Amino acid sequence: MKNYKLIIAYDGSRFHGWEKKEGQDTVQGRIENVLRRMSGDQEVCLVGAGRTDAGVHAKAMAASVRLDCKMTEEEIKDYLNTYLPEDIGVKEVKEASERFHARYCAVGKTYRYTCYAGRVNTVFDRKYYSKLESMPDIERMERAAKFLIGRHDFKGFSNVGKTKKSTVRIVDKAEIKRKGDYLYFTFHGRGFLRNMVRIMAGTLLQVGFGEKEPEEIKEILEKRDRALAGPAAPAKGLCLIEVEY
Amino acid sequence: MKNYKLIIAYDGSRFHGWEKKEGQDTVQGRIENVLRRMSGDQEVCLVGAGRTDAGVHAKAMAASVRLDCKMTEEEIKDYLNTYLPEDIGVKEVKEASERFHARYCAVGKTYRYTCYAGRVNTVFDRKYYSKLESMPDIERMERAAKFLIGRHDFKGFSNVGKTKKSTVRIVDKAEIKRKGDYLYFTFHGRGFLRNMVRIMAGTLLQVGFGEKEPEEIKEILEKRDRALAGPAAPAKGLCLIEVEY
Repeated sequence: MKNYKLIIAYDGSRFHGWEKKEGQDTVQGRIENVLRRMSGDQEVCLVGAGRTDAGVHAKAMAASVRLDCKMTEEEIKDYLNTYLPEDIGVKEVKEASERFHARYCAVGKTYRYTCYAGRVNTVFDRKYYSKLESMPDIERMERAAKFLIGRHDFKGFSNVGKTKKSTVRIVDKAEIKRKGDYLYFTFHGRGFLRNMVRIMAGTLLQVGFGEKEPEEIKEILEKRDRALAGPAAPAKGLCLIEVEY
Repeated sequence: MKNYKLIIAYDGSRFHGWEKKEGQDTVQGRIENVLRRMSGDQEVCLVGAGRTDAGVHAKAMAASVRLDCKMTEEEIKDYLNTYLPEDIGVKEVKEASERFHARYCAVGKTYRYTCYAGRVNTVFDRKYYSKLESMPDIERMERAAKFLIGRHDFKGFSNVGKTKKSTVRIVDKAEIKRKGDYLYFTFHGRGFLRNMVRIMAGTLLQVGFGEKEPEEIKEILEKRDRALAGPAAPAKGLCLIEVEY
């Protein structure tokens, strides 16, 4: 039995998210099926660094899996890329230490949320951004984003519902960049709550469009009230860029 | 009645090519439908700079159309981008001289054919390249491509079938570039015959894989025999990059 680290890219458009669910087409489910077949029908448990929602993409999701298999790293990678559908790509397969666990060992994650406010349909990347009617005010969003930085209880920015688990997280980057008609939000932190990145993006957009004041971010954090925050921005604009260990 | 020049991008994946055909979903058909609706059900005739095959993409197809319409150029562009599906984008609408005709006035066209020879599925651009099992020999293909340059009868490199029209064309660029696992063929000429770019790419690939000698290109041109050339490379790898006037 060896432990492996995988780096996986996927176009989330047609998947019901990362996490395996009975009767649904998910990225984890697809990869586990191929790994199971590869290792002669042994039970296989692929652990992702996190769970992405339905429709969310990944440039580099990390995952770990224990396999009893005589193939080399390259052979495993080739096998996966041969049998996986073309919207899932395995970029790396490396043997990892016995203790490596993709979820518990992750120390940082970078998510990027992409919007497009142009009036011309851009056809080649249309599945990877969320469309805006106009360009929101960057300066207002930057003022708002500053309130997100640091160690906070992000319950108001999540759809976790009732939970006994901590909803405190550290966000150490909430950057907003405009390039032409594109708008990019980049968030970095150790981990994020359910829907948290999309709700942060959706709330910042409301600030950018003047529907909320930058200072309201502070209030949402303090009151821990989901109803005060904005809607989750559409899944298609979100992409998991990197997981650090 | 004013004459307009349009610059159009499209993802050709789901269309039966540019040219309007009864009962089929085509790019020309889609745009004419929206223009017709825009101009109060008047008959509209959109002239493309060329016809792209089913599955071929365009970054900048040019087209001309006469419209009796009081809208500004920007308003027409917005209308089109609002009502066209998201895989067609109108990048530019400009009033043109009375004599401008997108097909007859074109003086140059650039096509790019993209291949990918990596072993990892790249998920985000997968619809825009043709996959190769391995990287062909660039130097051999470059030697072969030189024979294509110039004024030749390209009948052997086309699917025009029997025709009284001239099959002589001038190709002034046939460039091959490798970037990592990607391979790009760039062709420039005033005009190309039916399937000609895809057949040139398909034949160069055969040379690159050692299935043909570079010198056979010369023979195909001289004998004007389609059966001697290679297969047309798959449509999804081809993109019309620019039309010059």
